[in-house]
Amino acid sequence: MTSFEDFKSLVKGNRSCRRFDHTVKISMNELFDLVDLARHCASAGNNQPLKYILSTSEPTNQAIFDCLGWAAYLKDWPGPDPSERPTAYIVITGDHTISDKFWCDHGIAAQTLLLGARARSLAGCMFGAINIKKLKSVLDIPDHLEVKLVVALGKPVEKAAIDEVGPDGSIKYFRDENQVHHVPKRSLDTLVFKTFS
Amino acid sequence: MTSFEDFKSLVKGNRSCRRFDHTVKISMNELFDLVDLARHCASAGNNQPLKYILSTSEPTNQAIFDCLGWAAYLKDWPGPDPSERPTAYIVITGDHTISDKFWCDHGIAAQTLLLGARARSLAGCMFGAINIKKLKSVLDIPDHLEVKLVVALGKPVEKAAIDEVGPDGSIKYFRDENQVHHVPKRSLDTLVFKTFS
Repeated sequence: MTSFEDFKSLVKGNRSCRRFDHTVKISMNELFDLVDLARHCASAGNNQPLKYILSTSEPTNQAIFDCLGWAAYLKDWPGPDPSERPTAYIVITGDHTISDKFWCDHGIAAQTLLLGARARSLAGCMFGAINIKKLKSVLDIPDHLEVKLVVALGKPVEKAAIDEVGPDGSIKYFRDENQVHHVPKRSLDTLVFKTFS
Repeated sequence: MTSFEDFKSLVKGNRSCRRFDHTVKISMNELFDLVDLARHCASAGNNQPLKYILSTSEPTNQAIFDCLGWAAYLKDWPGPDPSERPTAYIVITGDHTISDKFWCDHGIAAQTLLLGARARSLAGCMFGAINIKKLKSVLDIPDHLEVKLVVALGKPVEKAAIDEVGPDGSIKYFRDENQVHHVPKRSLDTLVFKTFS
């Protein structure tokens, strides 16, 4: 049984992570376990149109790495050094032979598998900034699969802090002098537009 | 601490539910707790453009109910009887004054808050089949908020079973003679298109 407080800790601990211990490998079995979580999620009209491409291979990981835009707001940071790169990837695609509409199924799936990774003390990051043409070429992805998200995974070596959005209203994340990654989150009262009780 | 097995149980227990005990109310505080979970989720570019409208009010719940398409595959079922209707709703909207792209943020948020509801022994269902014009009118939603999803919530009185997709390939859910809701899910091996290890 997971209590609400336990689940809340899991969600709060599940920060987007971009630096990993490259010596800690993830097995293919672990990736299958994560996809199995996504398999049990809701899907619009129960269509289940998502298909997954999994990598634990160093050369394939490197090829995927080269297709991703890393941390747009950290202008001086081109992405993690080789020693801090993800050790596994899950590419989430939508299968057009099943449906032409994927709605937000990939968000539901990606969040669920990242929470599962977190429950195994791993961490990861969703990428929507993808060089899709290049990725389709290097992974030989057929045209009926539309790339929706890439999830990078590994053992985290990054500390993250959640801050309140300040008076300037900026939501840009930043790193402090101790390399802690700060993420400004909007306050709860600003997210709730209206209540009826 | 949530173990992987605990989390897997939570995910597997989190079935889309469409029949509830109408006598069990949900408090506005509980809805705020759920939105607070969504607040801690990843958001594309950390933009956090989602805004929430919350209802625990019976007349408002009824007005929202009338805007939703209930269980498309259950052709003979117009939706739950008054005694089995949801006792709360969370309407998830995207704020165009923040961004014009919401990507799959609403999927990430909806799944997270439904898992949180499940950890409190509640259940719910995401609705994309919404009469948006009517909903915007009855809740007086301004034009800068785009309705993305409605999440219905309550105490579940429905049993659900996960089945494998059969030889006919149908993914249509159905109810058996005992009113158990069966949801065919595709097998794990059919979801994984390719592996690199």
